[in-house]
Amino acid sequence: MSTDKVWTAGMLVIGDEILSGRTKDKNIAQVASWLQVQGIRLTEARVVSDNMDAIGEALNALRERYDYVFTTGGIGPTHDDITVDAVAKALGVPVVIHPEARAILEDYYKDKPGGLTEARLRMARVPEGAELIPNRMSAAPGIRHGKIHVMAGVPNITAQMLDALTGKLEGGAPLIAETVGCWVAESEVADALREVEKAHANCQIGSYPFFREGKTGANFVIRSTSRDDLESAVDTLCEALGELGFDFTPGGI
Amino acid sequence: MSTDKVWTAGMLVIGDEILSGRTKDKNIAQVASWLQVQGIRLTEARVVSDNMDAIGEALNALRERYDYVFTTGGIGPTHDDITVDAVAKALGVPVVIHPEARAILEDYYKDKPGGLTEARLRMARVPEGAELIPNRMSAAPGIRHGKIHVMAGVPNITAQMLDALTGKLEGGAPLIAETVGCWVAESEVADALREVEKAHANCQIGSYPFFREGKTGANFVIRSTSRDDLESAVDTLCEALGELGFDFTPGGI
Repeated sequence: MSTDKVWTAGMLVIGDEILSGRTKDKNIAQVASWLQVQGIRLTEARVVSDNMDAIGEALNALRERYDYVFTTGGIGPTHDDITVDAVAKALGVPVVIHPEARAILEDYYKDKPGGLTEARLRMARVPEGAELIPNRMSAAPGIRHGKIHVMAGVPNITAQMLDALTGKLEGGAPLIAETVGCWVAESEVADALREVEKAHANCQIGSYPFFREGKTGANFVIRSTSRDDLESAVDTLCEALGELGFDFTPGGI
Repeated sequence: MSTDKVWTAGMLVIGDEILSGRTKDKNIAQVASWLQVQGIRLTEARVVSDNMDAIGEALNALRERYDYVFTTGGIGPTHDDITVDAVAKALGVPVVIHPEARAILEDYYKDKPGGLTEARLRMARVPEGAELIPNRMSAAPGIRHGKIHVMAGVPNITAQMLDALTGKLEGGAPLIAETVGCWVAESEVADALREVEKAHANCQIGSYPFFREGKTGANFVIRSTSRDDLESAVDTLCEALGELGFDFTPGGI
């Protein structure tokens, strides 16, 4: 396996509550940041409603394109939790009760009123052939099926599942980033940014304007998989900003 | 035009900074909430990087499927702002300078150092045939081209553009929602939720669990386009929760 391979991931956020605006998604940013550290690049994310066809179609599109797929949402015990069924249908496999998941749930609910009800047992259902992704926060596990990772929608639980996956996925060189902040309208340095990026083929520069304390500023984020290339691009950018007469702040504002 | 038509929208969030996890997207929730009030349902959202092909492909998929498309991000003056070019390419039209946008920018920059530079003039570029979406916060306007609405990535500016569009798009009956909160593990009421939803065809019920103050609870959100159906479903749900012996909180916890 070449070390230059860029490992890619697609993400699927599932839930009517995101598309209604009721709940602000936190999982795209959380999964994206985690993937950076694993050396895997989040290349696309999609948000779909709690609908079998919408989930299945998006999942199939993402798994065809990327090395990994991560889903969040829709794996609880209620009627609107249909992710497992939709994933199984998309993969063309039946839904089965995972014996280990059943054991975890039996243990978790043994002292709780009602015990392991049929609704709770729903959380042991997996697409046939799946492994579990444990989480320490609640009994319901996540699910891995080949390149697909099915995780919870509640961000704290998603975090537990990501923690369980840390270091276990093959990835490439992580993308590293440096930020340079400047009290400047980005339009004043647009040419300089373009030239610095052109001169450093292995680096990308993003420009993120803001309005703060009544003033206009921007953070310039330089990203690369190479520490040397990154530092060289940062140096060139700082030099260019200095020549234009702007004060800049390494690390960002 | 039937009043029963469900008006749909797709959303395209454009930007490497979202997919790297550096910036948490706030625009999906913002646009989603705004669309609810317009009687338009956000049905799908996609996040793609600052890449011509990725933007074009996602835009074409969304505009084929939905009545409206909203994009955020990538319309500033810097080299990584390629949304206008990507939209024009996807539509098969040239990029032109919009005379009104040029006039706005000329006025805005007339007293500023450098004046209307070439980089700043980039913000007057539109796909041929476009109209402007004004914003009061910065000079750079948003762009409407048929069903496509191209907006800023900075959430405060996006908000200004949405404000300018308020009441101007044809929509259907807005989806209204009521929330009932309950200190209960959602698995204990999964059957009741399913039955209430089944008995009220024009309503959807979402179940959103949380952990707070060391306890498990859930908010149940009932959505409908009909006030009567919504209230009937809320009554039935509250009755069912009461019969099961749970305290519930109208309005949510």
